[in-house]
Amino acid sequence: MTQRIEVLEDIFKANNSQALLNCSRLEKAGIFSLNLMASPGAGKTSLIEQTILGLKGKTRVAVIDGDIATSMDADRAEKAGATAVQINTGGECHLDAFMIRNALDRLDLSAIDILLIENVGNLVCPSAFRLGAHQNVLVASTPEGHDKPYKYPGMYQGVDVLIINKIDLLPYINFDMQFFAQGVEILNPRIRTFLTSCSTGEGIQSWIDWILHQKKSFSAV
Amino acid sequence: MTQRIEVLEDIFKANNSQALLNCSRLEKAGIFSLNLMASPGAGKTSLIEQTILGLKGKTRVAVIDGDIATSMDADRAEKAGATAVQINTGGECHLDAFMIRNALDRLDLSAIDILLIENVGNLVCPSAFRLGAHQNVLVASTPEGHDKPYKYPGMYQGVDVLIINKIDLLPYINFDMQFFAQGVEILNPRIRTFLTSCSTGEGIQSWIDWILHQKKSFSAV
Repeated sequence: MTQRIEVLEDIFKANNSQALLNCSRLEKAGIFSLNLMASPGAGKTSLIEQTILGLKGKTRVAVIDGDIATSMDADRAEKAGATAVQINTGGECHLDAFMIRNALDRLDLSAIDILLIENVGNLVCPSAFRLGAHQNVLVASTPEGHDKPYKYPGMYQGVDVLIINKIDLLPYINFDMQFFAQGVEILNPRIRTFLTSCSTGEGIQSWIDWILHQKKSFSAV
Repeated sequence: MTQRIEVLEDIFKANNSQALLNCSRLEKAGIFSLNLMASPGAGKTSLIEQTILGLKGKTRVAVIDGDIATSMDADRAEKAGATAVQINTGGECHLDAFMIRNALDRLDLSAIDILLIENVGNLVCPSAFRLGAHQNVLVASTPEGHDKPYKYPGMYQGVDVLIINKIDLLPYINFDMQFFAQGVEILNPRIRTFLTSCSTGEGIQSWIDWILHQKKSFSAV
């Protein structure tokens, strides 16, 4: 058991060092970056599509798409109008900073203003691996249920932004928003929250405005 | 990198040996067991509640509940009428055979006919860790989207049974059942499938009947 812990510690340490290098590389290139994490099927890819469409003509967007298999998500991002790079983790349950370094090597950083990183769908493992993105974003979806903050505290604690997606399904499901919000408040009182539906478009504009504002503040520093 | 792979191989080997011991221990006690896996929020706990209620008076059910944190799921299983043991993995993204061994130590095996194991909500990691259960069950839910078999092939390949849950939401979402089924067919043509809604109760009886039939065939061997 001791050996396993030591090996894991080495992995986290090496990952964190690489994450810092990624962050500095992105900053030098003037790229504002977001790491989007979620359960499988919470709507990360749909949100990225809506984000690309909302930012079209305003700023240049690229996407790094992480998945166990297929290039379905990168294809969708490209179709929506962004430059996209697919990472297939080949079974790994999360992205890590080294995968991001390799993906950055495949992008023309001088042609990008905003980088969206779509992590592997997983509410546990991605929270332990920093990638070097400026903000960590969790996409929750209402059909997942109102108990998720309590049951996946590591993820809810470690992010800067929470998007509560699929709010168009609220009339058809049993989702207690107050109980959910209470759990989030205990774990992460300073979190920035957006309510969205990628089907109806509700809330997407506020999210786009926030990204543009962040990018502006970031560039002004 | 080599060292990491060696350590992981040791972990898998040790886990598989313990899984075989668990399986043999369950068989000696005449207990038929299911390992339920799913994304966070697919409805594992609701399905377990419905299963306990459906089996009430017919057979004696126990539940081992795996979660990162809280005892919310075990509480729900107990309230529905089963004996329940909670495992808090303390951050680990899946159950393993050693956790199950420890949980079995806490149960009176002579008082159980059917054991339901609720794994941590995760479509990646639990598929790599056998627990010693007789059947591996994946609970998918329609709001997760029809692309999930393609994107999480390891999980869809490695299970015996697929439950497609939350079918009551089909009228309100974009879910192409044919595309989904095609993905499942490619990966796992012999899988046994059930369509259920834990909200309306649709399909639950077939699932209960199947469990009772499996238990009977199992005991007759």
